Amino acid sequence: MNEVKPYVIGVDLGGTNTVFGIVNQRGDVLYDDSIRTQEFSTAEAFVEAGVVCLKPLIEKAGGIDQIKAMGIGAPNGNYYTGSIEYAPNLPWKGIVPLSKMFSDALGIPVAMTNDANAAALGEMIYGVARGMKNFIVITLGTGVGSGIVINGQLVYGHDGFAGELGHVTMVRGAEGRQCGCGRTGCLETYCSATGVARSAREILAKTTKPSLLRELDPEKITSLDVSIAAGKGDEVAKEIFEFTGKMLGEACADFTAFSSPEAYIFFGGLTKAGDLIMKPIEEAYNNHVMPIFKGKAKFLVSGLMSSNAAVLGASALGWDIPEE
Amino acid sequence: MNEVKPYVIGVDLGGTNTVFGIVNQRGDVLYDDSIRTQEFSTAEAFVEAGVVCLKPLIEKAGGIDQIKAMGIGAPNGNYYTGSIEYAPNLPWKGIVPLSKMFSDALGIPVAMTNDANAAALGEMIYGVARGMKNFIVITLGTGVGSGIVINGQLVYGHDGFAGELGHVTMVRGAEGRQCGCGRTGCLETYCSATGVARSAREILAKTTKPSLLRELDPEKITSLDVSIAAGKGDEVAKEIFEFTGKMLGEACADFTAFSSPEAYIFFGGLTKAGDLIMKPIEEAYNNHVMPIFKGKAKFLVSGLMSSNAAVLGASALGWDIPEE
Repeated sequence: MNEVKPYVIGVDLGGTNTVFGIVNQRGDVLYDDSIRTQEFSTAEAFVEAGVVCLKPLIEKAGGIDQIKAMGIGAPNGNYYTGSIEYAPNLPWKGIVPLSKMFSDALGIPVAMTNDANAAALGEMIYGVARGMKNFIVITLGTGVGSGIVINGQLVYGHDGFAGELGHVTMVRGAEGRQCGCGRTGCLETYCSATGVARSAREILAKTTKPSLLRELDPEKITSLDVSIAAGKGDEVAKEIFEFTGKMLGEACADFTAFSSPEAYIFFGGLTKAGDLIMKPIEEAYNNHVMPIFKGKAKFLVSGLMSSNAAVLGASALGWDIPEE
Repeated sequence: MNEVKPYVIGVDLGGTNTVFGIVNQRGDVLYDDSIRTQEFSTAEAFVEAGVVCLKPLIEKAGGIDQIKAMGIGAPNGNYYTGSIEYAPNLPWKGIVPLSKMFSDALGIPVAMTNDANAAALGEMIYGVARGMKNFIVITLGTGVGSGIVINGQLVYGHDGFAGELGHVTMVRGAEGRQCGCGRTGCLETYCSATGVARSAREILAKTTKPSLLRELDPEKITSLDVSIAAGKGDEVAKEIFEFTGKMLGEACADFTAFSSPEAYIFFGGLTKAGDLIMKPIEEAYNNHVMPIFKGKAKFLVSGLMSSNAAVLGASALGWDIPEE
């Protein structure tokens, strides 16, 4: 017998909290709850606590027989192995076979990918990329992540680690900014939240233009401060967004030479600045892309940025698992 | 009735000559002949001459009923439309629906792609990429082309023009070399045959080191001259290859952040220099790629560089067409 099971579990495993949600096929997160990731010094204790947290949610959904699968979005989550591999911001070191551990505990199939790939799946199934076969999601957060879809499939690459577009080199040689990955000049060092804050400090130091941002301690300026100032018409804040957008637009021009996507979809806090960031991206893109590609790609903001977006993205992975 | 047809026609449509070949499933080019592309001022006349050229080859193969399909590799060939679109080096301007024209004339299915994509298909079916699902072919010729395979499929992108890796930007800003595409700093301006010749002139002008290349007219130095000199141990020629290889290796490091392929396969005259070019590529790659990717990718030279390689690549496209 092969009844259609109406729900999947979506898991957003983050450095601070892990959110579990029961999701239906329309993309409604029906029941959810969370545990604090950092509280568990071993992965075994974490999985045990996760199962305890899930139990009442599963009961509300009518029992485990109603659940098709679980999808986990996690930093350094490897789709091929179902393991988290050497995640710098999690308490468990090395290779953690979390999919297998949850699958053994719950008796359902479990799949895993990284957070940006989960976001891309979410956009394809529930978001602005519905009906698209070729698009790239770029997540602008603490880092810059990406999920690449080609021919309707997520790109995992040979080893499961494809789609690290935050780490293409934008500035070569000595003047590139130091990146957390150990290299210099990566896109992430310019366009992540911390990258934008750093650009703010550099641009403020370089000029004497008046700016609302000068009222703040330069070492404590955040990308949110820049957004707020830009929203009030602050010229220096706008210049910071133009610099950031130019970097992103030029990077996208190179990505188009690779996979020529229909759309770039931006996800994360920085996109709340709207046209102030999106216009410079699109302009720089069309100025730098090969003539045959000019004006073709769409530049969109994610439609999934509610607090449950990451759970929804992970749940999309659950729907993707073939029925046994 | 649905008999298996034993042959396909592979067509290598180049700026100078167009070669037609009858290919069997093992990748043997059984019969071939060619016409001069530039002699035909209209696409109609070209197709007519092509059919005349093909007729005796088809007869030798036992008639058109023995032919499954035709695959064409052509500059600016668009897989989705079956048309050559705005090819700068061909006599027919605008959009030329060559697949349809040949299909109407011969009564068999015809598919088209660009030359580098055809090379990638050729490697996957007959060459060093057999069994690989994720790899990138980089063609080093008059230009730098690429064919990208992800999940066992060629990447055509949203509009059919994906895989233009010769046109990622390697040197940003004013100091980038002028490219034929109208932009500056493209990979192609450094690593094509003409790019290597230009590097030779620059490096010779910058130093006073003795070199075999100084015996030549600087304006007439070719990449072949550099290969020959490097083969004889010429230090300046080796330096030119190291510069070229570094550029390619750094570019591949970015490509890996995108699709993390199992292998990079290089095709074209420059690869005849062997380790003199391949070692600098691999070294620069491993120095510049993200730590998680280090040492994983293979760097290979195409196994298809006989004179019939392009025909073979195009024929691979013919096998790929679904039976009607």
